[in-house]
Amino acid sequence: MLLEAPVRGFPDAEFLARTKSAQNQMAQQGLDGILLMTEPEVRYFTGFHTLFWQSPTRPWFVFVPAEGKPIALIPEIGAALMRKSWLDDIRTWSAPAPKDDGVSLLIDLLTPLASNAANLGVMKGHETSLRMPLGDWERLIAALPGLQISDATKLVQGLRMVKSAAEIEKLGFICSVGSAAFSKVPEFVKEGMPLESVFREFRQTAIGQGADDAPYVVGAADQGGYADVISPPSQRPLKQGDVLMMDTGCTWDGYFCDFDRNWAIGQATDEARLAYHVLWRATQAGIDAARPGNTCRDLFNAMSAVIAELDDSGGDIGRLGHGLGMQLTEQPSHAVFDETELKENMVLTIEPSLTYGRGHMMVHEENIVLGKASARLLTQRAAEELPII
Amino acid sequence: MLLEAPVRGFPDAEFLARTKSAQNQMAQQGLDGILLMTEPEVRYFTGFHTLFWQSPTRPWFVFVPAEGKPIALIPEIGAALMRKSWLDDIRTWSAPAPKDDGVSLLIDLLTPLASNAANLGVMKGHETSLRMPLGDWERLIAALPGLQISDATKLVQGLRMVKSAAEIEKLGFICSVGSAAFSKVPEFVKEGMPLESVFREFRQTAIGQGADDAPYVVGAADQGGYADVISPPSQRPLKQGDVLMMDTGCTWDGYFCDFDRNWAIGQATDEARLAYHVLWRATQAGIDAARPGNTCRDLFNAMSAVIAELDDSGGDIGRLGHGLGMQLTEQPSHAVFDETELKENMVLTIEPSLTYGRGHMMVHEENIVLGKASARLLTQRAAEELPII
Repeated sequence: MLLEAPVRGFPDAEFLARTKSAQNQMAQQGLDGILLMTEPEVRYFTGFHTLFWQSPTRPWFVFVPAEGKPIALIPEIGAALMRKSWLDDIRTWSAPAPKDDGVSLLIDLLTPLASNAANLGVMKGHETSLRMPLGDWERLIAALPGLQISDATKLVQGLRMVKSAAEIEKLGFICSVGSAAFSKVPEFVKEGMPLESVFREFRQTAIGQGADDAPYVVGAADQGGYADVISPPSQRPLKQGDVLMMDTGCTWDGYFCDFDRNWAIGQATDEARLAYHVLWRATQAGIDAARPGNTCRDLFNAMSAVIAELDDSGGDIGRLGHGLGMQLTEQPSHAVFDETELKENMVLTIEPSLTYGRGHMMVHEENIVLGKASARLLTQRAAEELPII
Repeated sequence: MLLEAPVRGFPDAEFLARTKSAQNQMAQQGLDGILLMTEPEVRYFTGFHTLFWQSPTRPWFVFVPAEGKPIALIPEIGAALMRKSWLDDIRTWSAPAPKDDGVSLLIDLLTPLASNAANLGVMKGHETSLRMPLGDWERLIAALPGLQISDATKLVQGLRMVKSAAEIEKLGFICSVGSAAFSKVPEFVKEGMPLESVFREFRQTAIGQGADDAPYVVGAADQGGYADVISPPSQRPLKQGDVLMMDTGCTWDGYFCDFDRNWAIGQATDEARLAYHVLWRATQAGIDAARPGNTCRDLFNAMSAVIAELDDSGGDIGRLGHGLGMQLTEQPSHAVFDETELKENMVLTIEPSLTYGRGHMMVHEENIVLGKASARLLTQRAAEELPII
């Protein structure tokens, strides 16, 4: 039974607004253009949405000029789909082409800028990758003497951090789908079931509830608690006394939920129950602290204060939550180093974790959207006490 | 009902053999080490297998020295899983850390090499990305004066192109799962069903047949033929006279199948039937030409000769198939530019396409493994005539 879904895609006005916002900031920062090549950024400015990015073979480029619509420089295989977007200027080449995978198209585009010693923005900062061969990048830059290169990471990430109403609707929907899928877990999980089968059933359930896909399903189960949260599932059958955790990133129309749930199988130790309850309260402290004006560091500190009742090691996950949107994890990070000011319409995960007992760890996670004064849950809040299946 | 699966993972001996092969070639090419940072390459040398790579936040590094085991330089969140691998030297940092995401660990590791003006291999060629911030790469190189950087793309891709017996077993299994899922399509597809529901049902079916996931499900359907093969599914209901195509990359234990199937709904035009039959024969020509000693170009030419009976435009997909393994698409490419010599134990897709009628296109695809003298199908061969549902 599918939940009722919102409308797919975005009106052209939304891409225009995103582009105008970028161009306003580019003007302030003296950028004459931004060259983008990663999936979420290309999609953010064009609406170009395809699973084809899973093929690493071909590079894709979008150039955001100082004025006017973005320009796409893409493999011919994507031309039909890109022509459905709001873009007018779509330049293609027959890719793959090892000797010239878009490089000469980029040189043609950027040579006038280089001649003017213009300033080109490229994402080269934290949490970015160069999604083209490094050798091609080096050749491109060598062919454009005079071109200044600046880091546009903060500009683009700053735009993407604050979601539109339509983005929030998509995120709310996939969080509802994830919540519905998690609510069915006690119906199909039982003692003796191999963890791999639990994951398989969960994936099918999430898709059955309306997710386009459930690309990220990780978790663990072990006696009294688990010790690792990124491993693939084993064939080990669930046993009485296991703590089971599943963490999922399901997608709908290219937007992710990212949250987890914990259960005990048959019975739970006092230790596991306590860890759960502390994390539930740490999550609550995070949700309460998530309001415009506070920073990510404030959020981190609010959660850490509760976690420290049981574990003052600081953890090894590096942060206690993050941004959420077209990617499973986005900026900002709830961490000591991140002083990003929280703003209305940011969508965030609240993800406290701790270690307890003999090498056990536990993670809780919820997804929220920030309102004017406080946060609203997008996920159905986890039970206050460790649920027993 | 699950098909019977092979054993997951690989024995340590396989990672040792891969490393020794790399080191033999490194010695021949004068490389003193290779720095890797992309998921398939890290997994190839370590066995480190996690969905966590879907989070773009953290970089991961593996260094293959001239002698001895690879060294991992990774975020602490991956330490527990990496410790299960055959590696001994695992260096970690608490990531994310925007000011130093592994860079100083890399500098410590590579400074002795730089002092000796050593030659470091990095993958910077065709079909590669730099999966770390470009700014961090620039800082790293600036901190290592004297270090020579060479392109290790061909070396690593060359190793990965030829599969081991265990890899072929995994690939064969997921191809069987994909074939079983496709065989069920006529049971659930009917006129009036929206394409989105077709895709959803297919994903659940593939997972139900034993796939770990079906991350890549694309396709199209339209009257007399489709026009685009990378779009997400629409809500348009299937109609009499549609040609439906689905192309899937399903995964098992981190290995992909990648093939498609075509069906007509209710009835088919002569044009569509002819296009199908020509592509079926082009596929056969590709399979027949796929033998050690021939090149990828030979394979391309064998298919093109048949395709040209109906369409001599050369197509816009850029190639007629590719390598297959840990990635949906890998080297080599069946294209005019690719003179890679085919070798025993390569796993390839055979993927001819053509355009016909008024803007229609069609794609066929099968997966094969090369034996000593000829190819063996891993997929259950498509029907010789366009099947009608």
